[in-house]
Amino acid sequence: MIPSRVIETKRDGGVLGRGDLQSFLDGYLQGAVPDYQMAAFLMATYFRGLDASEAEVLVRAMLGSGSVLDLSWLDGPRVDKHSTGGVGDKVSLALAPLAAELGLYVPMMSGRGLAHTTGTLDKLEAFPGFRVELTLDEFEDVLGRVGCAMMGQTSEIAPLDRRLYALRDVTATVPVISLIAASIMSKKLSEDLTGLVLDVKVGSGAFIPEEARALSLASAMVGIGEARGLPTVALLTAMDRPLGRAVGNALETAEAVACLRSEGPADLRELVLAEASEMLQAGFPGLGEAEARGRAEATLASGRALERLARLVEAQGGDPSIIDEPHRFATAPERSMVVALEAGTVLGIDPLPLGQAVVTLGGGRRRLGESIHLGVGFELAVAPGDCVEKGDPLGTVHALDGAGAAMGEAVLRSAIRIGDGVADLRPLVSHRVSAAGVIRY
Amino acid sequence: MIPSRVIETKRDGGVLGRGDLQSFLDGYLQGAVPDYQMAAFLMATYFRGLDASEAEVLVRAMLGSGSVLDLSWLDGPRVDKHSTGGVGDKVSLALAPLAAELGLYVPMMSGRGLAHTTGTLDKLEAFPGFRVELTLDEFEDVLGRVGCAMMGQTSEIAPLDRRLYALRDVTATVPVISLIAASIMSKKLSEDLTGLVLDVKVGSGAFIPEEARALSLASAMVGIGEARGLPTVALLTAMDRPLGRAVGNALETAEAVACLRSEGPADLRELVLAEASEMLQAGFPGLGEAEARGRAEATLASGRALERLARLVEAQGGDPSIIDEPHRFATAPERSMVVALEAGTVLGIDPLPLGQAVVTLGGGRRRLGESIHLGVGFELAVAPGDCVEKGDPLGTVHALDGAGAAMGEAVLRSAIRIGDGVADLRPLVSHRVSAAGVIRY
Repeated sequence: MIPSRVIETKRDGGVLGRGDLQSFLDGYLQGAVPDYQMAAFLMATYFRGLDASEAEVLVRAMLGSGSVLDLSWLDGPRVDKHSTGGVGDKVSLALAPLAAELGLYVPMMSGRGLAHTTGTLDKLEAFPGFRVELTLDEFEDVLGRVGCAMMGQTSEIAPLDRRLYALRDVTATVPVISLIAASIMSKKLSEDLTGLVLDVKVGSGAFIPEEARALSLASAMVGIGEARGLPTVALLTAMDRPLGRAVGNALETAEAVACLRSEGPADLRELVLAEASEMLQAGFPGLGEAEARGRAEATLASGRALERLARLVEAQGGDPSIIDEPHRFATAPERSMVVALEAGTVLGIDPLPLGQAVVTLGGGRRRLGESIHLGVGFELAVAPGDCVEKGDPLGTVHALDGAGAAMGEAVLRSAIRIGDGVADLRPLVSHRVSAAGVIRY
Repeated sequence: MIPSRVIETKRDGGVLGRGDLQSFLDGYLQGAVPDYQMAAFLMATYFRGLDASEAEVLVRAMLGSGSVLDLSWLDGPRVDKHSTGGVGDKVSLALAPLAAELGLYVPMMSGRGLAHTTGTLDKLEAFPGFRVELTLDEFEDVLGRVGCAMMGQTSEIAPLDRRLYALRDVTATVPVISLIAASIMSKKLSEDLTGLVLDVKVGSGAFIPEEARALSLASAMVGIGEARGLPTVALLTAMDRPLGRAVGNALETAEAVACLRSEGPADLRELVLAEASEMLQAGFPGLGEAEARGRAEATLASGRALERLARLVEAQGGDPSIIDEPHRFATAPERSMVVALEAGTVLGIDPLPLGQAVVTLGGGRRRLGESIHLGVGFELAVAPGDCVEKGDPLGTVHALDGAGAAMGEAVLRSAIRIGDGVADLRPLVSHRVSAAGVIRY
């Protein structure tokens, strides 16, 4: 294997032999292939992509570079869900305990907030004392006792993926479908799952806004999962507006708790149920769609998933009593309500500026390791399609000071489009991608 | 300037602002931009190219990174010639003394053999004692006394170009027209010329075989030269067969000497005269084409350029007496003649395998700094278009041992195509590219 030949082959649009690509990746791990050759390779991949066999070799190398869980000792199916990330996406917090209550084991490794999106780990830390940094032994212990466990990706899992991601971040090679797919799937495959549900966001608030590219990503991930024997289903879900009403870490945590109490916004509830139903079908092959959906609805209505969440919080060192006293979640000192200046229909709510404003308000990171304030963000009072009168509340800004509140008000007002007509929205779930093909809803 | 943004802009096909690109290159020189970001940038440039303004910024940064000669003290025009390299191309050795004899100063910085082509520096070392590593002071001294001087590129000239070339070499980003153009022109512009003639080879033995890409390279180089006020002319010349009859360092040196004695092959003589005429016109604007050609022919016929070569060899530490005793040039111990196995017309001679075989025979380098044997190579007895009878000599292999001779025989035989019909060859000079546009001959 001559590294410059590997780069040249990819540059010219050829498909790399499995042995050559494997040697190239091994060489990178061992230091024989330097960062500058990998950077040239990654940029060539931006233009030429990776085919399914190349992606499989990359994922295998990522897996092989670190630890892989062995969860075969668990007495039930292991099913996880991963979202590509969006504004207001707090599904995981409600979904993991619900799925555990439905008889699945959910070994969920998540991330911090990234760019304009909040992260599951940050939202979990809204539970005072909650520890997201567990050893793999602690993680397995919580998983076995509670049925779900949630932690950050440790340096033991797929270190090649971490190194490549750091390099992509500084060489303008992040938005490459095949590399994104390999990165996500290497982490999920490390969890020793028996089923996987992927939530691929589409729309202006998603990392990949375009439907065609989001579909490519979904297909690539399903292909990687199935090639390694992991039944994988991807749903394309709407990110042309925020999910739910809360945007910002602790506000979103409180909304996820409300969802498990059968309160909270309808779109959040619907997505939690849709994904729980998919997880159930992945965990128990043969279970029909209607049966799965029925079980998910009944269990959510029972309130037992909320109790399961309390057990999870307690098992990971947090104080579960906050679940019944949501006013104790972190808050920001300045609140400012924005009202409608005119009557009309809410035609749309642009998620991207709201997500970006959370970072500006102090609720997201510009650099790795920065500390954030969990209480800032937005509570929307309206959803697309609602009719408002002049003076009706549109939403509330939660900020650290008056300047932040003023900025937040301006962003909130301009993000909400009010006018005549009807809201033109994506379906909440628009496509289902699986080994059986693509279904458009 | 954020390096990843510069890479991203190039990746997306945008044109970089002069300030941003300048800062990116300065950052690279100073270590703030690491090799891996430059490698990603170079690969993006492979796919997106550089426009004229970007190429100008790159050339300026290359020039500014090192020393630039000041030859304004010379009392005549300074004109150099550069060839992109081909098999059997020994033009420079005859052309430099001829141009000096015609009243031009020729400050020629050349290279070693590269891949399948021999290099001017290696050919010069066929003169026993000839020093190609001069200080810039020594170089200027020889130039002032002899009218021409020939040396290797020192580390003082365009170090940014050297660093970029080394990085391109290991990241599969060498064949990028705009980067090749900038690299060549940065070196030529460092020579403080008043005129430049470029010989861009086209055909299977050239580094850029395709006519369209060779024309792009010629136009890019002419554009860079003219943008910096250097009158620049490029000739596209044939490399679909070897130039002349000799292929291999000392054999080529002897053939160049023969050319200055008005002996040797017609195509070599024609190209030397064509390029001398262009150099004269570049050095003395207003001189007509016919007048320039006439002077070049008369001076070549006079034999004075041969004397000028002897002065150059002596000035750079070599033994000029070898010029009159060419049997003293380095020879290889094994000679083996290849004869025609059938009668017919020589339809073509493939230059690439002959050039590659010189490397295999020990006359070229696989790695920088390897020592080579100057005597090996090929002497062709025929040229395309010649008619041969069975048993007629086709050429002679010069090798270090019997195994080399056997390999050389096989290569020589298969490189020469004999059959019925006529040889279909490129014109020796097919295009002339200048600020006035492209002329096709």
